[in-house]
Amino acid sequence: MLYIPTIPGRDESVALRMQQTLDRKTKPLGSLGRLEEIAVAIAAMTGREDWTMQRKAVLVAAADHGVSARGVSLYPSEVTRQMVLNFRAGGAAVNVLGRLAGAEVVVVDAGVRGEPFAPAGGFWDCRQGPGTRDMTTGPAMTRTQAEACLTSGSEVFRSLHAAGCQILATGDMGIGNTTASSAIAAAVTGRSVDELTGPGTGLGESARVQKVAVIEQALALNRPDGTDGLDTLAKVGGFEIGVLAGAMLEAASRRVPVMLDGFISGAAALIAARVAPACKSYFLAGHQSAEGGHRYVLEHLGLRPLLQLDMRLGEGTGAVLALHLVDAAERIVREMATFESAGVSDASSKR
Amino acid sequence: MLYIPTIPGRDESVALRMQQTLDRKTKPLGSLGRLEEIAVAIAAMTGREDWTMQRKAVLVAAADHGVSARGVSLYPSEVTRQMVLNFRAGGAAVNVLGRLAGAEVVVVDAGVRGEPFAPAGGFWDCRQGPGTRDMTTGPAMTRTQAEACLTSGSEVFRSLHAAGCQILATGDMGIGNTTASSAIAAAVTGRSVDELTGPGTGLGESARVQKVAVIEQALALNRPDGTDGLDTLAKVGGFEIGVLAGAMLEAASRRVPVMLDGFISGAAALIAARVAPACKSYFLAGHQSAEGGHRYVLEHLGLRPLLQLDMRLGEGTGAVLALHLVDAAERIVREMATFESAGVSDASSKR
Repeated sequence: MLYIPTIPGRDESVALRMQQTLDRKTKPLGSLGRLEEIAVAIAAMTGREDWTMQRKAVLVAAADHGVSARGVSLYPSEVTRQMVLNFRAGGAAVNVLGRLAGAEVVVVDAGVRGEPFAPAGGFWDCRQGPGTRDMTTGPAMTRTQAEACLTSGSEVFRSLHAAGCQILATGDMGIGNTTASSAIAAAVTGRSVDELTGPGTGLGESARVQKVAVIEQALALNRPDGTDGLDTLAKVGGFEIGVLAGAMLEAASRRVPVMLDGFISGAAALIAARVAPACKSYFLAGHQSAEGGHRYVLEHLGLRPLLQLDMRLGEGTGAVLALHLVDAAERIVREMATFESAGVSDASSKR
Repeated sequence: MLYIPTIPGRDESVALRMQQTLDRKTKPLGSLGRLEEIAVAIAAMTGREDWTMQRKAVLVAAADHGVSARGVSLYPSEVTRQMVLNFRAGGAAVNVLGRLAGAEVVVVDAGVRGEPFAPAGGFWDCRQGPGTRDMTTGPAMTRTQAEACLTSGSEVFRSLHAAGCQILATGDMGIGNTTASSAIAAAVTGRSVDELTGPGTGLGESARVQKVAVIEQALALNRPDGTDGLDTLAKVGGFEIGVLAGAMLEAASRRVPVMLDGFISGAAALIAARVAPACKSYFLAGHQSAEGGHRYVLEHLGLRPLLQLDMRLGEGTGAVLALHLVDAAERIVREMATFESAGVSDASSKR
């Protein structure tokens, strides 16, 4: 049975005090735009004006997808495993950007095809199987597996939190997972598969159209209930998507901000928000992916992306890059002079 | 007499090699979007694939504006001086974000009202006078002063470059300088003053309309030739804008990338580009300001902003924040594994 953690609301009184603090800084009111918005949002999430987000982690969940047999990706499914090894060796984009951001990269095998990986530091074995089943011939996983994904993600985050993690960035790896994400997005948002399905890692238009047909077939066969997060995850989701959703729910329950990456993280956020809508109050959208469906996912979640840099790599790269803006907001709150301390005339002092 | 430095073209063969290097990294082609674009652009600017941008400076040029007597700002003109002292004490937003970016903050008094400042480290006295004259009653400065601004900016950058500066971020401080910038933008781009004029530090709509009338009056009286950068600078510009333009020209002549801040830096870039159009090849647009006219300035310069965070503070804050993306691009080039080194199958290997 699934345990869903209780998620506290934002503290709007702390948010108000944070905005007042920002308004005393030596700058025109509101002129730091979304940096101020971040500072205020995190104050409301954490319930603290003196929040700090120096202990950062990016959770990169990896899994394979049975539907990849249907030709929905440019890359062979072996790449999922190869990239997990690349993450563990520190050579992938998320490792590079994680080091720059000061974020620990935590890799989770949620169900990669082949044998289990050898144990390693910063690595979790949460395998639900050697990849999902092909969703065009039946559900991707059982409801029990879907629940186990959420539970695993929750456990992983609980451990990160115990070790001091203050902000969670989300990331993914899984050949075929834009296909699962489009299917989830279609089930949850009610938009057409066509508008939610892009080229993924780089399909041409005819292959994209074929991908749309595959997704439509999976939805017609499985009929996921888009208002039921677990049903949607089980029928057309992926193990890594479930693990991410579980980690998001756990982070929200502990008032820890979640920096979302792109389309796959967005699909996980849609699942999490169907399981416990209050978790949305803890989400920040790191960026808007170049994958076209992502904007509709963000719209449905009520989120505005921080960065728009035409990125579409996944792994958590967009989320980790956006952590810099959180650092900037924190520094502004802590280090910037006030009109009073700097002896600068406020607008109201104009003769 | 004005000396205009020779500006070399970009090296497109190095750009091509840089893109090939990026294409071997473990990621779908082009999937790091604008980070790849930055890496390639800087390779073309510097002529080096192994570029590094670790020595960063933000030049914050400050000056007063005679037109501020016409009620075009919420803030009294004393604030320019007070903010220079705040920059020197390290308490302003640009100091905070400069520390985060690892960028040295260099402050230039280009003509602040009142007495000269006492000497200080990281501070340049390039005073052209105690603020410009009111451009609604005559030209803001003489052509000789306009030339001296460019020369000063050029000298300041030459010194920074000799000390190792690899990338220049631009910033400004000057009560009244969105007014001068709107006038410059109207003269150079030919767009209407109304569409180029926003609330600046926070004017209400009726005050903004009054500001538009003031700018139109200045343009009608002085009739700047928008194809002549010096004439435009002299008649409706500002000392800090001229110093920034000079620094931009000098940086471009030395193949040093220039990260532009918002509307005032944009006006300086318009001036620089009229003086020597080739300098545009060395510009990166750090962000798009919330000040509405800025998008038209960027459009005219053929630049796409990296960040869009509703910021409108000036000082170089948007430019300095965007330096993080340059760091990210550099790290990707230097640290990320290739398909070959990581043993990851490329798309072409798909069975």
